[in-house]
Amino acid sequence: MLINCVAYQDGKRLGEIRPEEIHEYLARPGCFVWVAVLERDPAVLEQMRVQFGLHPLAVEDAQHGHQRPKIEDYGDSLFVVLHLLEPDSDGLRVGEVDVFAGPNYILTIRSHAEQGFQSVRARCEAEPELLRLGPAYVLYALVDAVVDRYFPLLDALETELESIEDRIFAGGSPRENVEALYGLKQKLGVFRHAVAPLLEAVNNLYGARTPRICAGMQDHFRDVSDHLQRLNQTIESIRDTIATAIAVNLSMISLQENETMKRLAAYGALVAVPTLIAGIYGMNFTNMPELGWKYGYLVTMGIMVAVDIYLFYKLRRAKWL
Amino acid sequence: MLINCVAYQDGKRLGEIRPEEIHEYLARPGCFVWVAVLERDPAVLEQMRVQFGLHPLAVEDAQHGHQRPKIEDYGDSLFVVLHLLEPDSDGLRVGEVDVFAGPNYILTIRSHAEQGFQSVRARCEAEPELLRLGPAYVLYALVDAVVDRYFPLLDALETELESIEDRIFAGGSPRENVEALYGLKQKLGVFRHAVAPLLEAVNNLYGARTPRICAGMQDHFRDVSDHLQRLNQTIESIRDTIATAIAVNLSMISLQENETMKRLAAYGALVAVPTLIAGIYGMNFTNMPELGWKYGYLVTMGIMVAVDIYLFYKLRRAKWL
Amino acid sequence: MLINCVAYQDGKRLGEIRPEEIHEYLARPGCFVWVAVLERDPAVLEQMRVQFGLHPLAVEDAQHGHQRPKIEDYGDSLFVVLHLLEPDSDGLRVGEVDVFAGPNYILTIRSHAEQGFQSVRARCEAEPELLRLGPAYVLYALVDAVVDRYFPLLDALETELESIEDRIFAGGSPRENVEALYGLKQKLGVFRHAVAPLLEAVNNLYGARTPRICAGMQDHFRDVSDHLQRLNQTIESIRDTIATAIAVNLSMISLQENETMKRLAAYGALVAVPTLIAGIYGMNFTNMPELGWKYGYLVTMGIMVAVDIYLFYKLRRAKWL
Amino acid sequence: MLINCVAYQDGKRLGEIRPEEIHEYLARPGCFVWVAVLERDPAVLEQMRVQFGLHPLAVEDAQHGHQRPKIEDYGDSLFVVLHLLEPDSDGLRVGEVDVFAGPNYILTIRSHAEQGFQSVRARCEAEPELLRLGPAYVLYALVDAVVDRYFPLLDALETELESIEDRIFAGGSPRENVEALYGLKQKLGVFRHAVAPLLEAVNNLYGARTPRICAGMQDHFRDVSDHLQRLNQTIESIRDTIATAIAVNLSMISLQENETMKRLAAYGALVAVPTLIAGIYGMNFTNMPELGWKYGYLVTMGIMVAVDIYLFYKLRRAKWL
Amino acid sequence: MLINCVAYQDGKRLGEIRPEEIHEYLARPGCFVWVAVLERDPAVLEQMRVQFGLHPLAVEDAQHGHQRPKIEDYGDSLFVVLHLLEPDSDGLRVGEVDVFAGPNYILTIRSHAEQGFQSVRARCEAEPELLRLGPAYVLYALVDAVVDRYFPLLDALETELESIEDRIFAGGSPRENVEALYGLKQKLGVFRHAVAPLLEAVNNLYGARTPRICAGMQDHFRDVSDHLQRLNQTIESIRDTIATAIAVNLSMISLQENETMKRLAAYGALVAVPTLIAGIYGMNFTNMPELGWKYGYLVTMGIMVAVDIYLFYKLRRAKWL
Repeated sequence: MLINCVAYQDGKRLGEIRPEEIHEYLARPGCFVWVAVLERDPAVLEQMRVQFGLHPLAVEDAQHGHQRPKIEDYGDSLFVVLHLLEPDSDGLRVGEVDVFAGPNYILTIRSHAEQGFQSVRARCEAEPELLRLGPAYVLYALVDAVVDRYFPLLDALETELESIEDRIFAGGSPRENVEALYGLKQKLGVFRHAVAPLLEAVNNLYGARTPRICAGMQDHFRDVSDHLQRLNQTIESIRDTIATAIAVNLSMISLQENETMKRLAAYGALVAVPTLIAGIYGMNFTNMPELGWKYGYLVTMGIMVAVDIYLFYKLRRAKWL
Repeated sequence: MLINCVAYQDGKRLGEIRPEEIHEYLARPGCFVWVAVLERDPAVLEQMRVQFGLHPLAVEDAQHGHQRPKIEDYGDSLFVVLHLLEPDSDGLRVGEVDVFAGPNYILTIRSHAEQGFQSVRARCEAEPELLRLGPAYVLYALVDAVVDRYFPLLDALETELESIEDRIFAGGSPRENVEALYGLKQKLGVFRHAVAPLLEAVNNLYGARTPRICAGMQDHFRDVSDHLQRLNQTIESIRDTIATAIAVNLSMISLQENETMKRLAAYGALVAVPTLIAGIYGMNFTNMPELGWKYGYLVTMGIMVAVDIYLFYKLRRAKWL
Repeated sequence: MLINCVAYQDGKRLGEIRPEEIHEYLARPGCFVWVAVLERDPAVLEQMRVQFGLHPLAVEDAQHGHQRPKIEDYGDSLFVVLHLLEPDSDGLRVGEVDVFAGPNYILTIRSHAEQGFQSVRARCEAEPELLRLGPAYVLYALVDAVVDRYFPLLDALETELESIEDRIFAGGSPRENVEALYGLKQKLGVFRHAVAPLLEAVNNLYGARTPRICAGMQDHFRDVSDHLQRLNQTIESIRDTIATAIAVNLSMISLQENETMKRLAAYGALVAVPTLIAGIYGMNFTNMPELGWKYGYLVTMGIMVAVDIYLFYKLRRAKWL
Repeated sequence: MLINCVAYQDGKRLGEIRPEEIHEYLARPGCFVWVAVLERDPAVLEQMRVQFGLHPLAVEDAQHGHQRPKIEDYGDSLFVVLHLLEPDSDGLRVGEVDVFAGPNYILTIRSHAEQGFQSVRARCEAEPELLRLGPAYVLYALVDAVVDRYFPLLDALETELESIEDRIFAGGSPRENVEALYGLKQKLGVFRHAVAPLLEAVNNLYGARTPRICAGMQDHFRDVSDHLQRLNQTIESIRDTIATAIAVNLSMISLQENETMKRLAAYGALVAVPTLIAGIYGMNFTNMPELGWKYGYLVTMGIMVAVDIYLFYKLRRAKWL
Repeated sequence: MLINCVAYQDGKRLGEIRPEEIHEYLARPGCFVWVAVLERDPAVLEQMRVQFGLHPLAVEDAQHGHQRPKIEDYGDSLFVVLHLLEPDSDGLRVGEVDVFAGPNYILTIRSHAEQGFQSVRARCEAEPELLRLGPAYVLYALVDAVVDRYFPLLDALETELESIEDRIFAGGSPRENVEALYGLKQKLGVFRHAVAPLLEAVNNLYGARTPRICAGMQDHFRDVSDHLQRLNQTIESIRDTIATAIAVNLSMISLQENETMKRLAAYGALVAVPTLIAGIYGMNFTNMPELGWKYGYLVTMGIMVAVDIYLFYKLRRAKWL
């Protein structure tokens, strides 16, 4: 089944309920309902809109999907959009989870994502005294879980960058390096689109303009903001390093060109000098005593070889070959 | 006809009216007038200035056109400038729509644009309970429609960028790539001039300093602002990618130069080595036994060919050819 | 004469007065004096300082000239510095106009500029009901006139940039292109120094911290600010485009190098291949039947030409020639 | 032992105490406890959490480590994270010290660092009148000590940059230069991650929003902030210089390529010209009087050598060789 | 002597006093003391600390020196650090002057600088009515003097930049150009470190948060701030131009490479074509009528020369030579 509704009373799990029963539980004091929709579906969304009295603009956003991460304050409820990132064959796949948090309910709608939030539910249910704080705590736990999942992915990007750096200086193919750097930059862009707007949004969940329903959770949201700032700082730092690495790679290409040119010239010299010698003994002067010598030919060939061997070692020592 | 005046009463359409009758309808309580001028015209603008009592500075701006997108608050009325973007044979054409929104009227003046706002009118008339909110709702619907039309155009730019990226790495002509990137950047500039100032302006339509006539529409304008932020983020991201792509393309040019150089050298070797051999057998030594051999010539030619074949395979394996 | 003093009463011109009479008119209620000094002169400035009681620091600035554009609020008076830009043989010449605006006087001091403000005076005198607003309106008219004169100059820079762009892609001399881009950037810098500080300053003439004497003119100064923002945006956009154009031009230089290299190699091949053939028939083998053929020489020459023609077409098709 | 607990009364050292006794001393008025944990350890941390009543989120951060530098205000206590930098075989090693500062205690937890804070303790104990100010003073002394240790490290980076600069202009290996610049940039990144967030955080320890426990130490923390700003400015300046140096190094690579090309061409000329002369005297014209001259061969060889000597000096003077 | 103490009463100079007498004069109403320490000295500094009751942190900063420019407000006194710039054999030397300004004293401590402030003292003493304003006016006069001395130095940098620009486009040595640009950038960095923090600091001496002792001098400090802004703008503009100039210089290097390549190829052609002709007549065909002609050799040589002359003019016209 695609919907998972659970009611909680004073921090304790009452059990799963049917979607049609939601409004009954909402009416009970000290009770809140946590609904997880596993895949976006217009019909379900409409049912939820009615049950919880969601704001039409927020519902519209949830229906369309492809929102930027944000936290919108509708007075007595919050609408939160989070990006779920999953490594893909060629880059990062972006999933989305939309969260509606009201005074006595929490509704999550997932799409294009395989990651679930069972672990979040387990963590919350394991701490009844915190769960008693209600939807704000669940919201915190959700956002925290999403943000925590970003760290290993970003670490992977850092590792990838380091391996490209190694290749740049170890003489790897500059074409592959530049392609890899470009690809990394694209992935980093996806990351930045997930983190930067969320950081901005979470910064409004503590401090002077805290929304009503997050009142008691300010320290927790500051902690999330701190994690996001760390991510953001790392992203900026990778970004900066990629730009430098592209410039450095260009320098490497020029250096390589330089070396190619020298090698070409060295090989050219190994052919040109014997050609000159051969040209000399191809001259038609009547009086060229060497031409009459018995071993003139052999000696000349020997000289050619000797000159080339000499040049070869000379050029090798000068690192042209 | 170039003017289209319609009066509305309590969210319902009363029907088209003549421009001269406008002031009569403005006097009726609960009634508002929606005038659409299809092409800027000084005479019409003057008539409207008198009928609605528009601010002279705003009228002057509307007369000159070529304004940057903005929203100006004149206390009891707003003057809004929006850019309409339309794909053109070589880039993006910029049209303009100027909107005057007062407590009981909305006036739109279009210029250099083919897009109409019939769909907006239809949408508004289909939702009488929202239309009852008056000009503020119509203003929202207009801005929202303009902004929504930006998305497919920006998607097209993204697609164009991706196809250039593919060409860069697939070895397309670097000259064409750099030209395409430059052209894309120009188009993006047009886009940025449409979006960035509008975002800044819309941000003043909700929050602490909301103009009086937008009072009830704050959530809606925040939604528009959110769309504009999404556009803006995408624009910045494309901008950044174009800069990187130009740098990467330069790397590709250098790499190509490198490869050209190697190919040239390889072909040069295929000519230079046989030339050396020919030079050797052109020497005039008396005692060069090979010269007297019956098949000396053929064997020498054979050696030349063999050496070239050997070199060819060697060079091909080294990716120089 | 270098000074031009005119007194106005209730928006109407009373006529020219002598500098010595200024204080008499300043004493009359509803009267204000507009003094235009056509070329900076210490003696005149000292006279004005006494007549109007100007602030010593402002007078010092006006005496030295070469100020950055600014608007300084001295409580009951404003000191305004504006840059006048005039196209020059090699760039833009920067003139300056300093304006002192008090409750009942306006004093303008021009230097290094040929542009006059007769048109501003004419415009003001043509609208008595606005002129009645006093020095604030005249100040607005002056600033507005200066700013309006920036537009055609900036348009000229844009046109210049476009023509350079065309040359870059049409294969114009990269050396001239880079020189032209550099020159354009210099001119743009002059422009930016005129516009950016003025924008910042004008933004303080409306909104929360409006100086007393500009109280009734806020909408007008917002309009000027809007024009300045448009200029500023265009300047930033040109700046950005120049940077990209320089990068693109560098790519073009590299591409051209690439093409030069190919052409060189192609011409080299047209010489090297016949040289090889000649070398072959220069060999001294006893048994080279072709050497004895009657038309051997001719045929060989024909082969050389044929090979070159073949290579020529091959290379041309590969765009190396 | 890994824990070091000392109690102080009115600025005087009472002596070391056992961790179990901490709460007794905390209860005494005018007494504060300074605990230094020398290496992070979950069990010890849990004990401290209980003894001092630390905030769970702060404890969690201290347990995980790898935080960004920050100062978190928990009302009656502060949680401070500082980075300790130590030069390493290949770069900078990042250690961490976490500080909990409450009204009557200070707790420091070190990890991955060899630097101790004995000198800080000694300095504090030497100034009883300042130590009487309590934990706020100790916190200042700790932060100040950490920041002061950054200066010599940053000086070392500056010296390294200068030596690279010298190598760039003195014709050092561009490959090594670019590698060194890249490595320097990496180290600078580590530095920036230590300094920038700390600066931001320390700026909240004086001025309007000073935390309660730092109330009397504002001038001191402003002084620390000033040092951090100096560091930050130097970091930004090095960063900027590195970027320029990479660009300059690329120019040097291109120049070197240019010179290589000239040298190659010069050597080529020294071979090509004699080859041409040899070719001429290899022609088979019947009537070539020189061929019959007695010293024709020697003279020709002499001419070849003479031409090469002439070319050599000519090319050397033109700096091609 | 290294200390220069002068007492002033109601804006008039009372005469030099001995350092030991300072506290006597401080006690007199309407009297203030101006002490100039010509070279930093710990003993003198300690004496001054006692006499004026200076803040220990400020004294510590003054003792260490090498501070960034700043203005620190200690309630009833200000501590000001200014950089003195002096052109040096290779760059700019940075001196420092530290100023302590209290309600009735001003203390300046110079170090590493040859510039004195006699002219400031003379200017102040020449205007008793301003000097009566006390230490605030002297502080202004000092800061103003320091800032005014920046202008000619910055003008010199601008002139230097212009001469480099000329050399870039006039074909000067790119290696020297890039070195000169780099050196200029270094000097500009020193300048920026002197100006930018001072601007920030001076901006706090007028407006809402003016320190008590500067209360009556706001217009004057705004004037200084304006000068600093002008300097800052010029610095940013030079910085920007240097970056562009480095990029342009790289383009010039590439262009030069291009031209070198063409010249090489041109010279190569002048040798290769005659070599081919010589090769042709070196062929051993029996039937080559030209070989038997009486003037065959001469004609051939003539053809070689003619071809080269033709090529030479052709290549020169194509600007390859």
